Amino acid sequence: MTNRWGGVIPPLCTPLASGHEVDVASLERLVDHHLLSGVHGVFALGSAGEATFLPDRQRRTVLETVAKRVAGQVPVFAGAIDTSTLRVLEHIRVASEVGCAAVVVTAPFYVTPHPAEVERHFRTVARQAELPVLAYELPAAVHTSLQSDLVLTLAADGLIAGLKDSSGDDGRLRALATGFRALHESRPVLFTGSELTADDAVRHGVDGIIAGLSNVDPAGYVRLFRAATAGDHIAAAEEQARLAGLQRIVDVAAARIGVTSARIGAMKAALSVLGVIRSAAAATPQLPLNDHEIARIQVVLAESSVR
Amino acid sequence: MTNRWGGVIPPLCTPLASGHEVDVASLERLVDHHLLSGVHGVFALGSAGEATFLPDRQRRTVLETVAKRVAGQVPVFAGAIDTSTLRVLEHIRVASEVGCAAVVVTAPFYVTPHPAEVERHFRTVARQAELPVLAYELPAAVHTSLQSDLVLTLAADGLIAGLKDSSGDDGRLRALATGFRALHESRPVLFTGSELTADDAVRHGVDGIIAGLSNVDPAGYVRLFRAATAGDHIAAAEEQARLAGLQRIVDVAAARIGVTSARIGAMKAALSVLGVIRSAAAATPQLPLNDHEIARIQVVLAESSVR
Amino acid sequence: MTNRWGGVIPPLCTPLASGHEVDVASLERLVDHHLLSGVHGVFALGSAGEATFLPDRQRRTVLETVAKRVAGQVPVFAGAIDTSTLRVLEHIRVASEVGCAAVVVTAPFYVTPHPAEVERHFRTVARQAELPVLAYELPAAVHTSLQSDLVLTLAADGLIAGLKDSSGDDGRLRALATGFRALHESRPVLFTGSELTADDAVRHGVDGIIAGLSNVDPAGYVRLFRAATAGDHIAAAEEQARLAGLQRIVDVAAARIGVTSARIGAMKAALSVLGVIRSAAAATPQLPLNDHEIARIQVVLAESSVR
Amino acid sequence: MTNRWGGVIPPLCTPLASGHEVDVASLERLVDHHLLSGVHGVFALGSAGEATFLPDRQRRTVLETVAKRVAGQVPVFAGAIDTSTLRVLEHIRVASEVGCAAVVVTAPFYVTPHPAEVERHFRTVARQAELPVLAYELPAAVHTSLQSDLVLTLAADGLIAGLKDSSGDDGRLRALATGFRALHESRPVLFTGSELTADDAVRHGVDGIIAGLSNVDPAGYVRLFRAATAGDHIAAAEEQARLAGLQRIVDVAAARIGVTSARIGAMKAALSVLGVIRSAAAATPQLPLNDHEIARIQVVLAESSVR
Repeated sequence: MTNRWGGVIPPLCTPLASGHEVDVASLERLVDHHLLSGVHGVFALGSAGEATFLPDRQRRTVLETVAKRVAGQVPVFAGAIDTSTLRVLEHIRVASEVGCAAVVVTAPFYVTPHPAEVERHFRTVARQAELPVLAYELPAAVHTSLQSDLVLTLAADGLIAGLKDSSGDDGRLRALATGFRALHESRPVLFTGSELTADDAVRHGVDGIIAGLSNVDPAGYVRLFRAATAGDHIAAAEEQARLAGLQRIVDVAAARIGVTSARIGAMKAALSVLGVIRSAAAATPQLPLNDHEIARIQVVLAESSVR
Repeated sequence: MTNRWGGVIPPLCTPLASGHEVDVASLERLVDHHLLSGVHGVFALGSAGEATFLPDRQRRTVLETVAKRVAGQVPVFAGAIDTSTLRVLEHIRVASEVGCAAVVVTAPFYVTPHPAEVERHFRTVARQAELPVLAYELPAAVHTSLQSDLVLTLAADGLIAGLKDSSGDDGRLRALATGFRALHESRPVLFTGSELTADDAVRHGVDGIIAGLSNVDPAGYVRLFRAATAGDHIAAAEEQARLAGLQRIVDVAAARIGVTSARIGAMKAALSVLGVIRSAAAATPQLPLNDHEIARIQVVLAESSVR
Repeated sequence: MTNRWGGVIPPLCTPLASGHEVDVASLERLVDHHLLSGVHGVFALGSAGEATFLPDRQRRTVLETVAKRVAGQVPVFAGAIDTSTLRVLEHIRVASEVGCAAVVVTAPFYVTPHPAEVERHFRTVARQAELPVLAYELPAAVHTSLQSDLVLTLAADGLIAGLKDSSGDDGRLRALATGFRALHESRPVLFTGSELTADDAVRHGVDGIIAGLSNVDPAGYVRLFRAATAGDHIAAAEEQARLAGLQRIVDVAAARIGVTSARIGAMKAALSVLGVIRSAAAATPQLPLNDHEIARIQVVLAESSVR
Repeated sequence: MTNRWGGVIPPLCTPLASGHEVDVASLERLVDHHLLSGVHGVFALGSAGEATFLPDRQRRTVLETVAKRVAGQVPVFAGAIDTSTLRVLEHIRVASEVGCAAVVVTAPFYVTPHPAEVERHFRTVARQAELPVLAYELPAAVHTSLQSDLVLTLAADGLIAGLKDSSGDDGRLRALATGFRALHESRPVLFTGSELTADDAVRHGVDGIIAGLSNVDPAGYVRLFRAATAGDHIAAAEEQARLAGLQRIVDVAAARIGVTSARIGAMKAALSVLGVIRSAAAATPQLPLNDHEIARIQVVLAESSVR
């Protein structure tokens, strides 16, 4: 099928300069880093991109920079992550103006929605959006879940173009892959958000991988994806094992500054160590990694043959 | 002490016209309804005001309308509720331009912050805000808690002007009242978010009441507050008992559409039944109350002598 | 009304000797300590009594020791805390044999019950129990909640003799007090589990106080209860404030060993410092307080005039 | 490697007769059903076996019946699931007397343990147990998690013979498989609790499958296990897909009576429909499936070729 999204689509980190401005030059280098690695798309303003930390102006700068630098070589997905339907629609408008290919949308949050309100949110967003909508399942941040039945209903009604599933539940993912396949030509695309079981996901019919760690080693995930789609499952599993070793970078500071800051900080530190971005600074109020932790990340990078 | 905030400060509902626009005329009537009832301030863009459902343009309209209509008769607090430090600071800028007296700020959300990051958030916000900052403890929405120690530290350092506590933990509230008193002249103001134990809160030294239900019956909460501050605890408890009866309106639709939509929907339905606002419509994607539920709310209003 | 339970009913700690055996002599002294302080009953094998840590043999020893030492001077409540209906009924049988006055029962746990199953649990327990049943609301341990509607239905049907409410929600507590009063002669007794708002609870019609901290200072809670029932609310609030100061003992080790072990450990350490029980040892696998923490507890005891 | 546990080890349902007694004849037939299907062991008194619903006498009857019927043909694992270290040790004593091969132990629950207390629990249990201990990761019931680091430490210290992982996190499972392999001869056995990703688990080095659904179709899981260990991953995935279809039985009543009762009830209903056990009754207070739901389960069984 032509024009079908899939493959490795890294959720880009957002390099920051002092003053919490987007470091445009670093972001361009990050885009190049990914394009040269053969990724099949990029996803700007996801959780790994610190979307919810950035004001709207900076969010727009990120999308403009990425869309311009990618220049149509691969599709650009844009996170449109906000608390409610109307606010999400505003982010979608910007993504559309800038020329993104699709938007990625979670359930509403802060106020806990009723399941019927989650459905209403997606129906409203899909009807009014200027771009195809991928639903984004991320219960760790949103504190509500997109039930499989809802995802399949929205898909059957042609309202969502796909799903990024970061539930961490691989049984659910396989069931969704089966359910999506049953929709034949109109089936949506399915992405796993897992760093650690991406090879199995692809083997079971998932279309692509949107994994934070692919910021640091996009070439590794591209190799994994190619091996898995070619049926070379041993090679895919070996690559996956190497990447699982690399994933240890996110544990380095977790006990000290919390799981999320340790994760974003580690990816940015690694990209900085690798010379792709200039500064490892994360958006306020996230705590920075210290020198000892960055040194440890360098060791893990070397052990995982990332350079 | 002059210039000290306190008393009944209703967290205003945001009346909406079709198309999800702010119904300015209804909002003005709502402000009048409160001022005539003798409230000591108003709080726009809190959770009851559906702040997180509204785009920035509508948020600004709310603040402008309220500030203009209040015209300095009482202080106007503005919710500056968003996912991160930088986004909160933008909302504060608007509140300042519009002439609000203070802003109300939660911990960051979506990405779970480390406790040290919650502190960093408030320190940064307080340092850069053009207005006094009240911290807002609302774990049900934010999924993280402002530890008492942190609140007291921020207060002692002069960084917060007060706290709105919607923890629902009255033991904590009393301890904070004691802790705040120990700061003498520089003590911050303390507000309870409780509809149901407001009399006790005031009796134990809380400065004021920011309770959703006071949208519907501000005069009742004003009577309660006056009785409690005058030491007439029996009258305060009787008023509190009547208001507890009125609070049953929020249960009417809870089993069908969820606790939060049932709550906001009930307050708007009551205000509509009372002729204060034109429509009970809540922002997308919240589900509306049905006719049966609205009729039930009318019964509760009558039983609670609200007209 | 005669024969009506109420007042201060401490949830007794369970002193342990080495080898995790019940220290019977210390438990007898603890009972005496309470009786001499004028308590209105005792509650053995609650959460503060480490019920779920103790094997059935030790649980029986606790009940036998307490019932014998109390010798009918006040009612003895027995916790019958276990994962399921059938297991709870076995504990009730023992409590009945030993001569307890009533049992205290939570919702089932480990397997999360459906609300209709919680109701079925209490109906079955109540029908088969040889003793009056008090429901025990303790969501922090049980991870499910006894909805007010369920409590009132069970009460109206004559199935529960009372409720110990450790929800920490004082608005709910006042609503339950109102609901219980409406049942007139058949109204059940209502206990608060709050250390910190017991005076207000009594003022609003709660019958009694089952608060962990009353292990350490039963005389203080008895004074508080007497003042509150006599309508001397200022004296009650002053006593409550002193006890809030004493409650700081539970924070001493909380950051190091967790909230629960710090709480049980602090109460046992205080009782040991006061010479009531011999050892502060808590049941395996709880971590013990260290010398520094015990010294700090001694300071708090002195500051709170407990000796 | 000889004497090494692994393969398909169903967590046996516990058939009940009226009066909540164990239906011994049905339990014997269930054991035969499994042995004839070629399972590599059985696990009595797990969560699927309703362990926490049963009094100690019934628990003993289950273990005695199973151990006697199995008669040494395969290893019998026994759940020793209870709230605390001392209570768990009592269950282990019974399992040892009865001749079980190993016990399966969760973290303590009801009182939330500090991570260091979880470790202390396992160290104490392992030191005093008469049988090898398998740790049981089941956060959905226990509300606390066995961190991978703790599992690896206990394994390296020779304190646990294995882990049953029902975390649902397949990335974690693969990391644990890698960590266990690094312990060489002393490496513990690793079981997945997943119904839906068992083929992948085995492919990545997990030793065996302890999945509730294998009660209903043990032969299916045995085929899956054999195909996966033989490297025929296509056949394993096909079997897994068929079993995923069968797993729909647990959804039949979930919306009406809750996830857990729907799951246990569905497995028992299926076993009853298949003629293996006499009654689908579940222990009090679980709600039973209705006739419509049982009919639906029959349809799913037929669609999944289980007869």
